[in-house]
Amino acid sequence: MNVVVFVNAVLMLLLAGLMAAEALVFGESREVFLLAGVILGALGLFLAAATRGPARRLTLRHTFLLTTSVWLTAGVAGALPLFIWGMGAIDALFESVSGLTTTGATVLSGLDQTPRGILMWRALLQAVGGVGFIVTGMALLPILRTGGMQLFRTESSDKGDKELATATRYAGATLGVYSGLIVLCGLIYHIGGMNVFDAITHALTTLSTGGYSNYDASFGHFDSAFLQWVATFFMLAGAVPFAWYIRALYRRQYASEQVAALLKTLAVVILALTLWVSWQSGRDFMETLRAVSFNLVSVVTTTGYATEDFLAWGPVAITVFFFFTAMGGCTGSTAGGGKMMRWILVFRATVAALRRIRYPHRIITIRYEGRPVSEDVLSGVITFFMFYFLTVAALAVALALTGLDFDTSISGALTAVANVGPGVGTIIGPSGNFAPLDSTAKLLLTFGMFVGRLEMLTVYVLFTRRFWRDF
Amino acid sequence: MNVVVFVNAVLMLLLAGLMAAEALVFGESREVFLLAGVILGALGLFLAAATRGPARRLTLRHTFLLTTSVWLTAGVAGALPLFIWGMGAIDALFESVSGLTTTGATVLSGLDQTPRGILMWRALLQAVGGVGFIVTGMALLPILRTGGMQLFRTESSDKGDKELATATRYAGATLGVYSGLIVLCGLIYHIGGMNVFDAITHALTTLSTGGYSNYDASFGHFDSAFLQWVATFFMLAGAVPFAWYIRALYRRQYASEQVAALLKTLAVVILALTLWVSWQSGRDFMETLRAVSFNLVSVVTTTGYATEDFLAWGPVAITVFFFFTAMGGCTGSTAGGGKMMRWILVFRATVAALRRIRYPHRIITIRYEGRPVSEDVLSGVITFFMFYFLTVAALAVALALTGLDFDTSISGALTAVANVGPGVGTIIGPSGNFAPLDSTAKLLLTFGMFVGRLEMLTVYVLFTRRFWRDF
Repeated sequence: MNVVVFVNAVLMLLLAGLMAAEALVFGESREVFLLAGVILGALGLFLAAATRGPARRLTLRHTFLLTTSVWLTAGVAGALPLFIWGMGAIDALFESVSGLTTTGATVLSGLDQTPRGILMWRALLQAVGGVGFIVTGMALLPILRTGGMQLFRTESSDKGDKELATATRYAGATLGVYSGLIVLCGLIYHIGGMNVFDAITHALTTLSTGGYSNYDASFGHFDSAFLQWVATFFMLAGAVPFAWYIRALYRRQYASEQVAALLKTLAVVILALTLWVSWQSGRDFMETLRAVSFNLVSVVTTTGYATEDFLAWGPVAITVFFFFTAMGGCTGSTAGGGKMMRWILVFRATVAALRRIRYPHRIITIRYEGRPVSEDVLSGVITFFMFYFLTVAALAVALALTGLDFDTSISGALTAVANVGPGVGTIIGPSGNFAPLDSTAKLLLTFGMFVGRLEMLTVYVLFTRRFWRDF
Repeated sequence: MNVVVFVNAVLMLLLAGLMAAEALVFGESREVFLLAGVILGALGLFLAAATRGPARRLTLRHTFLLTTSVWLTAGVAGALPLFIWGMGAIDALFESVSGLTTTGATVLSGLDQTPRGILMWRALLQAVGGVGFIVTGMALLPILRTGGMQLFRTESSDKGDKELATATRYAGATLGVYSGLIVLCGLIYHIGGMNVFDAITHALTTLSTGGYSNYDASFGHFDSAFLQWVATFFMLAGAVPFAWYIRALYRRQYASEQVAALLKTLAVVILALTLWVSWQSGRDFMETLRAVSFNLVSVVTTTGYATEDFLAWGPVAITVFFFFTAMGGCTGSTAGGGKMMRWILVFRATVAALRRIRYPHRIITIRYEGRPVSEDVLSGVITFFMFYFLTVAALAVALALTGLDFDTSISGALTAVANVGPGVGTIIGPSGNFAPLDSTAKLLLTFGMFVGRLEMLTVYVLFTRRFWRDF
């Protein structure tokens, strides 16, 4: 158990370091971050000192506890400066978890007048959360077998120190690619007309597919076609598996079924919706294409930026956006949602079932990127979607119990669990804000974002009796 | 191919016979049914004469064509008297398919003034559709392997004439149980205060889980607690596998995992919702219990009767009703929806996946009613839910394209494919009517009801190139 506490303590020290940096750079909110940093740093030091010792290999139980507790710790620690700054405790927790899970739903309004230190903190939470998710996925999801990451791992199944070395090098490469893309995106944002501060924060929230903006009008504040296309490109870049970049850079392997499926699906849907919306509204085709591309890519990559209230495009757009909220980006990226890989596997299982009707005695194997997919993985994918559906349904009913209307309840539940950001309806739509919801609803959504990010199972397994008995 | 046409011709003659009976009994609409019966009878006789000959064993392709064409023929034939009576062609088709698929969505208003012959025809369509679905399920679903009926068949896998004899005896027993329950239900309805005509028609639409009523106020017309509890009981009776009755009657085997799961789920949800609604509205607990039981059982069994506008119970009720629209009754019953058996299998696959995390090297078998479930069946269940989801999503977008709002589009798609009846929203809610929709929307919903009833795959397989090439 010491290991679990120790890692949490190290995380606290890291976040305290970030707070110290904030205190140094931003004068306006210096006291806030200084106080938060000192509290967190002291607690982290105390816990680290109390539990340090020779590292032991993690058991399965520890892995689960570690993952969940690390995210909980980060959520509470991230809320600390927001709370000290003056937000209510529940609002601060909501904003922090929404940031870390790269959901991007906000309870803050008047962002244009918010101190820069706070805005930067929100962006940093998303950047940390994004890379944290990729690392979590690499470490944990193979154990969960829910069709997340294990397919990436099949090539490096050698055990022991060598595995650790590979994993460390791999994590380093991922961090490198992630940082590189953020720097590149920020530079282009700056060239496109953003000031340095906006360029940095928006680059952080674009590549993490988080979607926090510094403006109440979200990305619509930048009335620039160039910036919108750049953002569309880099949101997509954040929803691509980071392992793909590494493969492309080191081994010149560019093929990826997930990426191909993501791009093809988006191309078809964007084109169709653009034709419909421009035909319906009489808007210029190219302008509509840009608006549809930006906002649909934003929802599908689970970023959650908006340039305008796409719900005003009518029920067709609302329905399309509603269903694509559930889709998500690629596994191994910072994006949430159902994930392309799982949709591909389910789609192939369906095709296989159709073929089995025709050839009942033939053995039909489902393949992914050329390799056969085991029954284990398939039933893991079912498990994931089952939990996805049940979590959304239960959360929607719970939200309705707090007095919210049907649209807000159902799309709020979906947008939280898929880590997207905006929902459907007048309150939490792309031009709305989560502030008017009551505390219970905010806590429910916080829980939804949390379990959604940890792909449900990680959290739920902690609630089973077997976990505490004989794990 | 002759076989396919011949069976369709026999079906036409059967329906022509029903029309003749209608013409004999109901004076007011005599000409309508006489004309329809003569047209259909003549066509049936011609086709039967042209294609009769020695019966050949059906190939797989013929089975698919036969099933789909039989339901199409019945849909068009059922619409014939409604069209002659004066309904628009699309309205008549909608009403007929809604009846045959036991959906129960209606475009007719002013039912209280509608001729009895027409009302009886609607009820007969549902009764015929209900038994037709059970028979279709027995014959076809084992081939589809989508977790429908094949588990019932494993015990009688002997081939040839003996199999046919068993199937015939089994179909006879099913028809017997079905008719027996209808008669019993009608008798109790009559004792409870319905006149003979209402008792007969409502018994027909209760046991078929169809939900056509003779009144615009639906079952709410009968302001009788007794009748409402009786209907609740018999809707449930229609959603129980008919094989269960046969097992119970002939072999005294009462255990059924599907039935147990259905009753337990309903008990929990009804109790919870009753507590909530009576606490919220201050209504009497027993009265609320009756209203919640009736309307929730009506939606879950996919009957679609309503006693009041349950959408007025607030967003919690709307959200609960929305999600339970997808659930459905048991396989092997007249009910639609996802079906309890599939939910049980998905649930067990989920539990198995959780156990595999703990014991990665143990072989974990999923069982249903004591027997192991093959991988085939599981991937068939995934296929079903995949098509279920995609069909609903595509239909919802298509409905939105006709100009309907988000709630109506999404719940209209779901209620049609699940063969329930009423949806959510002001137009197609339990107190609404499908008449205001435009023709395209009606045709889309007709298609949805049709593919939903045939469990998607049966229809979709006809659209594959492989089917026409080398099936």
